[in-house]
Formats: sequence, structure tokens, C-alpha cells
Amino acid sequence: MPIQEKRIQKDLDTINGFNATPGNGITRLTLTPEYQGAVDYVVKELKLIGADISIGPAGNVRGRLGGTDDGGPAVMMGSHLDTVAHGGQFDGVVGVVTALETARAIVEEDIDHRLPVDVVIFAEEEGSRFSRGLLGSSVWTGLMGADQLSTIKDEMDISYIDAMARAGVRVDDRRTLTPSDVRAMLEVHIEQGAVLEKGGHRIGLVEAIAGIRQLDITIKGKADHAGTTPMAERSDALQAAARIIIAIDEIAVDSGPHSVATVGRITCSPAQVNVIPGLARFSVDVRSPDRALLESAVDKITRAVADICRERDLDYDIDRMAAAEPVLLSSNIIEVLEKNARKNNAASLKMISGAGHDTALVAGLAEAGMIFVPSRDGLSHCPQEFTRMEDIVLGCEILLDTVIEIAI
Amino acid sequence: MPIQEKRIQKDLDTINGFNATPGNGITRLTLTPEYQGAVDYVVKELKLIGADISIGPAGNVRGRLGGTDDGGPAVMMGSHLDTVAHGGQFDGVVGVVTALETARAIVEEDIDHRLPVDVVIFAEEEGSRFSRGLLGSSVWTGLMGADQLSTIKDEMDISYIDAMARAGVRVDDRRTLTPSDVRAMLEVHIEQGAVLEKGGHRIGLVEAIAGIRQLDITIKGKADHAGTTPMAERSDALQAAARIIIAIDEIAVDSGPHSVATVGRITCSPAQVNVIPGLARFSVDVRSPDRALLESAVDKITRAVADICRERDLDYDIDRMAAAEPVLLSSNIIEVLEKNARKNNAASLKMISGAGHDTALVAGLAEAGMIFVPSRDGLSHCPQEFTRMEDIVLGCEILLDTVIEIAI
Repeated sequence: MPIQEKRIQKDLDTINGFNATPGNGITRLTLTPEYQGAVDYVVKELKLIGADISIGPAGNVRGRLGGTDDGGPAVMMGSHLDTVAHGGQFDGVVGVVTALETARAIVEEDIDHRLPVDVVIFAEEEGSRFSRGLLGSSVWTGLMGADQLSTIKDEMDISYIDAMARAGVRVDDRRTLTPSDVRAMLEVHIEQGAVLEKGGHRIGLVEAIAGIRQLDITIKGKADHAGTTPMAERSDALQAAARIIIAIDEIAVDSGPHSVATVGRITCSPAQVNVIPGLARFSVDVRSPDRALLESAVDKITRAVADICRERDLDYDIDRMAAAEPVLLSSNIIEVLEKNARKNNAASLKMISGAGHDTALVAGLAEAGMIFVPSRDGLSHCPQEFTRMEDIVLGCEILLDTVIEIAI
Repeated sequence: MPIQEKRIQKDLDTINGFNATPGNGITRLTLTPEYQGAVDYVVKELKLIGADISIGPAGNVRGRLGGTDDGGPAVMMGSHLDTVAHGGQFDGVVGVVTALETARAIVEEDIDHRLPVDVVIFAEEEGSRFSRGLLGSSVWTGLMGADQLSTIKDEMDISYIDAMARAGVRVDDRRTLTPSDVRAMLEVHIEQGAVLEKGGHRIGLVEAIAGIRQLDITIKGKADHAGTTPMAERSDALQAAARIIIAIDEIAVDSGPHSVATVGRITCSPAQVNVIPGLARFSVDVRSPDRALLESAVDKITRAVADICRERDLDYDIDRMAAAEPVLLSSNIIEVLEKNARKNNAASLKMISGAGHDTALVAGLAEAGMIFVPSRDGLSHCPQEFTRMEDIVLGCEILLDTVIEIAI
């Protein structure tokens, strides 16, 4: 067997040994000593199989196995090594260790390939240190200028550029990726949901990555005494917010099976047991792989806020916090992945990714595909995050077959 | 005119000069230097008219004008001098300065009275320092043992007993009040609502003080990824909370014109934009002057929580935080107050107090009455709190007439 479970297990264990919060989940923030330890381990392993290492903009790492057509575009595979605070052992890591193992197999089996094969590690995917998700891939694909890295700071007010310097990370290839550099991008990732598990599937083939709109909504009423203000005389911001929160739920349900909306944060003010809330503020996170449905859901939410506030004679603000467009992945690559899943006797399911991934950004330059492996109970971003090793190995085998097919 | 507006204005201004937050509302917490400054001023003024000063349990202050029947029960009048943080100039203070001015008028006009007339200052009415509202009146009326004052602590972990010692307050009359001590209790207070203002009334005669039930409700769902968890697979604690919050509003509206319910505080957890709330926690404050309606509203809220959580397969906790029973004030005293309002050409309105008052506790021992004066825009517990001096004077004139009528 070219793909060796034992090596993958050792890679996983070694990388997760680099952890700022042992016993309390995995915390490995970008450019910290733990992060650099994990990166250095992968680089060392890549060097053992003769890969050429280069450090791209923002500290993204590339380990290249040269092909017979050295000027050709590369088949890239990989993911990220940074985690959320107190996260799990699999998110991101699985995509890196399966790429590393795939590269090892190609070298050991002495497989001729025309195109270069790259193992990549994207920096700051989670945004846990610098509050900007997909940062490494944004810079590498040119969506964000590398000059902005001096203005992006962590909670200690250390800029990304300074953090790179402190970590001893030196960029030796400043070029951003272009379509002529990349033939394809492939990423194995945990599902972070329970769709595969519930359907009894071991492999998910991602057709699209949902677009995201995030809103920050503030309802402005009037704080009054909870005892002396009759029900009919109130301008209760939280009562309006409750009706909007329910409307958001209904709008998401009506926006098709792949659309979701979540109110994840809420506060009210003055936040006293015996005072009617004069202000209620909450976040909305709306996602859909279909841009029209996404926009329509946001429009409906905006209208619901306006209608409910008008009825109750309240003011409101809606701030747009973040937006990412939906991304369709390559149907050609999905076809190859599906064929290789069948070859490996894996029940696969075409699905939508509700979470964002670096591959979504590379998909703007090249054909891209993602292989999902099941998350137990759908849990992710927590210490309980778990994916079975046999599923990781299966994902790796499909990755190997697919990389070879494209790179040959 | 026995009641002199100028003196009341000077009393108000002097007392509000004792303030820990000048320029940012009035903050005068029990047993702080500001509080003691205000108490000392009133005591000094009471001594000027020959009142006998005594300090009761918990530092409640009494200034007595002896009557011809010295063993007889007293006619008490007064209110409190402590405020909420960043509160207003009128809540509590109005009841103390009108009692002081009434005592002055009785002495100056040389009015013979059979029963003693007492000006009282209740300690820690707001509960702003020691988190227990109506603390002074609870101890004085024997509802709470004075021994508990060593266990009740402020945010700095200073016990009430220690705070009294530090402030130099020495109890010289440890007896609690009994029915044989009190003939009647009268309190002038700002309305803290907008009922009088909206109806064009200058005087409110309180028939009942609402009972209160406060609940702390926690809904327990499951925190999940906002992007990868389909709408149908969610256990969203906040969505359930929103439905309960609306049910609470409807239950209050259905519980009669004098019943109210308020959700004043809400938080959810983990409180991240992109995570479905696994937990939502909120407060409920329910008030009604009718005990049966109050209990029935709490029962309906409890049932709504159970029903909504059962439908959605969620767990919940309901903690009872605080309870106060509704209190009916004396219809005899209301009759006298109403007659004296008419005598002073004041449009009066019989009404319910949605806020709690020390007088509600004394009403367990003796006939009690409250005179409300209008709050501009219904605002209270904030720097904008305002009541017109002419309304305060009017309330004081009705108080004087009523005290004389009962004490003679």
C-alpha cells in the first residue's frame, strides 16, 4: 500500500504535540512557536523526500516535487496548520498530512509526473490570531496586497509582518499565484458538520462553497422602568429583536436546503433585570452556495428589520460586517474524484461546504476540488472534534489517485 | 403659606450636592461619605426644629416631633436618600424633603398633635450597594433579622455591619417596628412612569404596590458550526429563547392592564458570529398588584418555556431570583388623601405602583398611603429624571394636611 496509515498517524500526533493549551484542546495560532514547530516538522518531512521548499507571501509554505515538464503549472494540495483557540486535532491538519503522505507515496512509488506536485500550507486560515480568516490564501492569490500585512495586527498589537520577523519567517518567493502557476488545487478537509455521518457516507465531494454575508443589527428603543411602564407604552428593543430573530430563521428555511442563517451573538442594554431594554444588538450570519438566494435572503432580513421596527416605531442600524461570494468548484475535478472514490469502494456524496476554505480562493485561478471526510457528531472547532483514521486514509488514497491522474 | 417652595428647593439642592458622580447623574450609595453627608444635613435640619433623632436597626433614621399623647403610635412620613448609580435628583429625595418641610410647617404653625410625627429615612432602598432592595425597611419591620447584616456584602466584600461601623453609624434604638409603634405611614414619591403626565394628573394616589417575581431562565441547546449545520439539524438555544420572549410579552398583555413582564437581560454562548448558540440565558421580571394574576402569569411563562423547549427538544432551567407580594394600601388613607387633593385643587388619579417602595413593608404593620408626583417623560433612575417643583410642593401640601388630620 503506497498510503501508510502509521505515517499519517505519526504526522498527526507530532503536529498536535505543538499545542499552546495541552489538556484543553489544540491552540496553535499562526506564527507562534507552536505553529512554527508544526510547520518545521512538515518542512523537514518534505525535505526528506527531496521536495524544494519555498516560502511565499504571508509565509505560505510550498514543498515542490518537480515534474518532467518543469515550466508547467503545478498540481497543488494541502490545507492549513493554524487552529482556533481550544480547537481540535483535525481541522486543517488532515489536509496537510494527507498531502504530505501523498507526496511521499509519489516519491516512493517512483511515479513519473509531467507537472510539478506541490504540498502547500496556507497561513492564518482561521483568523484566530489576526482576526482575518483565509489571510494566507488571500495574499498568495493576490486578493489582498502583501503591503496590508503591516497594518493587520493581533490582540497584542503585533503586526503580521512583525510576527513573521519574530518567528524567523523569511519570504523567498514574493510572487502571487496566477492561472499559469496552478493546474489544480486539491484539499482534503473534515466536514465540520454531520451530513456525511447521518447519511452513512465516508467521502464528501464539494460542489460549491457557500457565500457568506454577516450583519450587525442594532435595534433602538427606549429604556424604561420595568415596573412602571404599561405594556402598551413600551419601546422594547429586545421584543422587536426576538421577532426579527424568528423571521431570520424562517427566511433561511425558505431559502432552499443549502441556505442557513444564524444569530450567534446578542446583547441588550442597559441589561438590568428591572429595566426595559433600550437597545438590542445581534449578529446575523447568512450562507448559501447560490448567490441569488444569498442576496435575496439578506434583502428579506433587511425588510423584516424595517417592517418590525416600523410597526413598533423603533429605529435601527444594519452594518454589513463581512461578505464572501459563493464559489463553484470544478465539475471536471469532481468527476475524477467521484471515479476515484468508486475505485476505492467509497460511498461518496456531492455536497455543499457551509464553511469557507483556502481552496475557494485558489478556485478563482484554477480548477479546484475538495474531499470531505466525516466529523463525528458534526463537531468541530472544539476539543471533541474527531475523524476516524480509516476515513482520513481513504481520503488520502482518493487524493493520491486524483493528483497522479492530473499531474501525469 | 406653611409649605415653602424655597426651603424645599434648598433641601433638594443641598442633598444632591452630596454626589459621587458630579456631571454624570447622582450616585449616592448607602453608607458612603456622600450618603452620610446627605443624612447629616437632614438630621441637622430636624434638630433645628427640635426633633428627637434616633438611629434604628440597619441605620434607618427617625426624627420625632413628640405629640401630646407621647405613648401613642406615630404618624411616619419619609422615604430614602440612597440612589442607583448615575440616577436622578428626585427618586427618594422628594419623600424625605417633603416630610422634612411638613415637620417644619407643623412646628412653625405650632400645630398641636396628639400622636408623635416622625420623619424617617430608610437605608438601602435601591439595593445599589448591597444588592438587596428595601433592605433598611426589611430590617426595621422585622422581615429580615439584623444579624443578617453581617453576611450581606457590597462588591468590595464589605459587610453592611462593617460599612455602618466605617461610616460611624451607631444604632441607638434596636427595636423593630410593631403595629403599636405606627399609626400610619405616608410617603411622597415620584411616579417613575408616565401615567400621570399622559393623563394630565398632578397627583397619584397609590391603591396597591405590585408584587414581583423575577426569574432567571437558561435554555440549553447545542453549539454547532453556523455554516455546516442545516436548519433542520439545529438545537439553537437563542431561537427557542426568542419564541419564549415573545410569549412572555403576550402573557403580560393578557394579564390585565396593571400587569407587566420584562426580559431585561439576555446573553448567549459561545456568543460567536459563526456559531449556533448552545446556551441562551435571560431574566424575566413579572409584576402585578393582583397576586392571583401574578402567580398565573408566572405559571403561564413556565409552561411556555416547557412547551417551546419540548417542541425543539431542548433542556432548560428556571431559577426564581426574587419575589415580593403585592400590597394593598389603606383605603381609609386614600380617602383622606383624595379629600385633601381636592382641597388643594389637584386632579388626582388612583393608581398602581409598579415599583416597590419601603411603604409597602410598613403597610404590613399599619395603615399606609403613597402620594405620587409626575415624572417628566416617565423617566427615572437616570440623570434625566425630573419632577416639577410645583408638583412637589402640591404633594407636600397634601401630605401636611393628611398628617395633621391623622395625628391630631
